[in-house]
Amino acid sequence: MIRRPHNAPLGVFDSGVGGLTVLSALKKRLPNEDFIYLGDTARVPYGSKPLEMVRAFANEIILELLSRGVKGIVVACNTASAASPELSAELSVPVWGVLEPGVQAALRAAPGGSIGVLGTVGTVRTGAYQQRLEAGGCRVWAKACPLFVPIVEEGVSDTAIARLVAQHYLHDAPPLDAVILGCTHYPALKPILTEVLGSAALKGPVLVDSAEATAAQVAADLAALNLTTDRRTPGWVQHLVTGDVASYHHTAALLGGPTGSVTRVDLERRSYTSPRNPTPPQIYSAPRETSDETPHEQEPTVMRPT
Amino acid sequence: MIRRPHNAPLGVFDSGVGGLTVLSALKKRLPNEDFIYLGDTARVPYGSKPLEMVRAFANEIILELLSRGVKGIVVACNTASAASPELSAELSVPVWGVLEPGVQAALRAAPGGSIGVLGTVGTVRTGAYQQRLEAGGCRVWAKACPLFVPIVEEGVSDTAIARLVAQHYLHDAPPLDAVILGCTHYPALKPILTEVLGSAALKGPVLVDSAEATAAQVAADLAALNLTTDRRTPGWVQHLVTGDVASYHHTAALLGGPTGSVTRVDLERRSYTSPRNPTPPQIYSAPRETSDETPHEQEPTVMRPT
Repeated sequence: MIRRPHNAPLGVFDSGVGGLTVLSALKKRLPNEDFIYLGDTARVPYGSKPLEMVRAFANEIILELLSRGVKGIVVACNTASAASPELSAELSVPVWGVLEPGVQAALRAAPGGSIGVLGTVGTVRTGAYQQRLEAGGCRVWAKACPLFVPIVEEGVSDTAIARLVAQHYLHDAPPLDAVILGCTHYPALKPILTEVLGSAALKGPVLVDSAEATAAQVAADLAALNLTTDRRTPGWVQHLVTGDVASYHHTAALLGGPTGSVTRVDLERRSYTSPRNPTPPQIYSAPRETSDETPHEQEPTVMRPT
Repeated sequence: MIRRPHNAPLGVFDSGVGGLTVLSALKKRLPNEDFIYLGDTARVPYGSKPLEMVRAFANEIILELLSRGVKGIVVACNTASAASPELSAELSVPVWGVLEPGVQAALRAAPGGSIGVLGTVGTVRTGAYQQRLEAGGCRVWAKACPLFVPIVEEGVSDTAIARLVAQHYLHDAPPLDAVILGCTHYPALKPILTEVLGSAALKGPVLVDSAEATAAQVAADLAALNLTTDRRTPGWVQHLVTGDVASYHHTAALLGGPTGSVTRVDLERRSYTSPRNPTPPQIYSAPRETSDETPHEQEPTVMRPT
């Protein structure tokens, strides 16, 4: 009997805890799937690091997840998504970034309009959001907001501190029809951003949460690829972190908290020799011989450049 | 003719740009010395990382600096100083941390008094400051202030944002006689901290800047070890960074700015096999044979555990 990968876990990764907002959205939409979440907490933040370094980190993590037999990978990190649009074409499993679903949701919310992009220094510097939105016929105003992540992680998202910082970044924003929260931490700042942006523009912009948009895309693609689990029971979540486990529990609690086990993993042992020849995940070795069972191998759906 | 190391450069390192405050203090006191400053900007911040990881980073950097022939090393990073009090005993050159000079300055400023310690999560968690101050007969109140570094790096140290954040951390501080700024970034917050702490206690505490205290200690020790340069002209500064060079220029400007060349260096190539047998710096291979010329090899002065 041939083993199909549809009951294998989905891999989700982020530079740290931020991707837990994406994991939560995925779990809500796909409650019976199993998830392996990898937070690269030893090397967080990615947002201020050189892009080639971020790409190398993403490659290491993808290898780790593939070695654990995932059936697909969600890059739940805007910086890594923006830095590595090409990493997917080489892989044998589908890869989704958070960038394109966010762009599509913004274009639907404000067609031909004025769209704001808030993100890390790294994300904004790539220009990836800006290029796609402009190609979609919108005017774009982008702003790097490096204080937002530490504010969320300090647990002061709903205080006067967060309000002042939001005003600091947004005081010169033009009137906007939609604003992409281009970093996984930012949904925690929605109330303050609504307050500040609502008063800046007469009619407040739509806040686009990429986590929701990404989860919808992943669910639709899994179904189309015949990769949705057929289990009827709630799936598990395994958390892997490269840094301190206790710190992870503490910080993760601010973003919904980890459910399931948390284990430390050492990525540095693993060296990524060639992106063209990643270690084939064991779960695919059988289906590889019988191609009709594995539609995702013939049509890798990766980072979805529209 | 035997080559003496007194005209070799001093190595200074930090997890990022923060150590530039220490470098500035050193340059002011020792203008004719040459300096190699290494900022581990690819792996910043250290303050939230596991201590054994911080120790491994420090070891890698020390090897890099030794391979460049430094005559001594200043660990201009509170987290690394607090994490690695023992790293020095193994080395053939003097090593200074910022922790002990700060402790001594605080004990002089407020003997038997009440002393506050502000630092990163990592620094406060080690308890290194607290133990030494309590051993010196003081009461200690320590607080991790993770938002202070991003606030300085965002260039908003003198704004209402910084004031609110300082109040957030200090609102429950007891009356204090002295406060150690236990992170190299914090001197940029002196005006705000004076304002907030001055109103919390009736008579404001002395703010202890470890950079100044460390520079004084290094100058005194170099003289005692016969290692002060005999050049009469201003020395150079070479900056090595593990991350992005352009970002370094930008962020460093907030802390006085880099003077001299900035070069990217890759530490990951270098693996630290044994702390007991570091690669001997080439500059010491000759003096090693003629011991009277090299007092610092017989009496390594390291991290100065009082």
